[in-house]
Amino acid sequence: MTNTVKAALIIIGSEILSGRTLDKNTQHIAQKLNNQGINLIEVRIIPDDMETVVRTINTLKEQVSYVFTTGGLGPTHDDITVDCIAAAFGVEVEVNPEAYAILLAHYVDQETFTPARQRMARIPKTASLIENPASAAPGFQIGNVYAMAGVPKIMQAMLDNILPTLEGGAKTHSRTIHTPRAESDVADILRTYQEQYPAVEIGSYPYFKAGSVGVSVVLRSTNTDMLDTLEKQLTQALLPVA
Amino acid sequence: MTNTVKAALIIIGSEILSGRTLDKNTQHIAQKLNNQGINLIEVRIIPDDMETVVRTINTLKEQVSYVFTTGGLGPTHDDITVDCIAAAFGVEVEVNPEAYAILLAHYVDQETFTPARQRMARIPKTASLIENPASAAPGFQIGNVYAMAGVPKIMQAMLDNILPTLEGGAKTHSRTIHTPRAESDVADILRTYQEQYPAVEIGSYPYFKAGSVGVSVVLRSTNTDMLDTLEKQLTQALLPVA
Repeated sequence: MTNTVKAALIIIGSEILSGRTLDKNTQHIAQKLNNQGINLIEVRIIPDDMETVVRTINTLKEQVSYVFTTGGLGPTHDDITVDCIAAAFGVEVEVNPEAYAILLAHYVDQETFTPARQRMARIPKTASLIENPASAAPGFQIGNVYAMAGVPKIMQAMLDNILPTLEGGAKTHSRTIHTPRAESDVADILRTYQEQYPAVEIGSYPYFKAGSVGVSVVLRSTNTDMLDTLEKQLTQALLPVA
Repeated sequence: MTNTVKAALIIIGSEILSGRTLDKNTQHIAQKLNNQGINLIEVRIIPDDMETVVRTINTLKEQVSYVFTTGGLGPTHDDITVDCIAAAFGVEVEVNPEAYAILLAHYVDQETFTPARQRMARIPKTASLIENPASAAPGFQIGNVYAMAGVPKIMQAMLDNILPTLEGGAKTHSRTIHTPRAESDVADILRTYQEQYPAVEIGSYPYFKAGSVGVSVVLRSTNTDMLDTLEKQLTQALLPVA
């Protein structure tokens, strides 16, 4: 098992690009994947536009092991993800019998299961369903692409169903060291240690709050022994100068 | 003036992709650009990796009027944005005399203006500086690419300095209608109106909170008269069925 399992996330959502909605799905998905040894290497936020969505899916699905999409699975005219992913894989969209049955049960009877609601049973041919315990309308997987809802609670429930089926790599662990020194004051120290420990990624994140400044130094590696050693050394090296 | 001014945003930040940090810069930048009639058409979140950053800048700068980057401008080894943008434009990096003078004044004297701090005066040749009232180290503009800091407060100050220099298009206005009806229940209504008003973008965003459900219907257009008309008609059409 090596640490080379890579994933990409496509956020299909004009409402994020207009500034109306703050995207919180990226952070949740990133953390969950990271816990499982899967590295999120790119996120693209794109509008509800057929050509853009198809092109983006086609580009990213060749570059990574897993592509996740959020958004565009609902019953309205601006929900185009099903058709885009079908087009990207060159398959037709069909009324999926399993999805139809799930939705019919959810909406109780044929009268309340309106044509608009039936639209949510449209799934690309050959895709597998991803269960949606929150609101019935399923997501789906085809090839290495996983289509999830955009509403955070529904997305999270779908992701929990997907995660056990993914093959992860070695988990990346992290250690965080806080120092009250200025980032420009510790830059040389960090650079020296980074050169000495190429297998650890040393990130430097300055903060400015309530009149105080400092740096959070984040060490990330699959090798916990090396992390422990470096953490001890750097904690000493980053102490405030007396 | 048409509404075709497009922008893209590149978030350079491994800390976003690891899930450590929630990105809030996208929403702020999206709102500010939108207010000025500039459409953010794509956001890419990418790691602090030279090859990826250069490739992404080169791709997007050909597709839009303005490319913004956030992150990677500090004094540490993981701050590679200056070198990446220089490489994308095929120019060298130099110690910018103006940036050097600003930083020297900020750090008071030559002794505290250490080599690590002097690194922040490195700017691609031919670039113009973007003033940083928060912490002195400037951003810069070269061609249609604007490099800003990743720390939200500093980024916001830099963006405020950039915005008056950008040429916007017709501003996109929006109206939001809330209805307590289920999204699948109003889907046909929205589709009908969308077909009737192609110049208005009708977005449908379901919400689920504290036991209640409903839909926020967002109308977006540069034509305020048409927005007003459609808002009235749709507000009526979306009333709960008695």
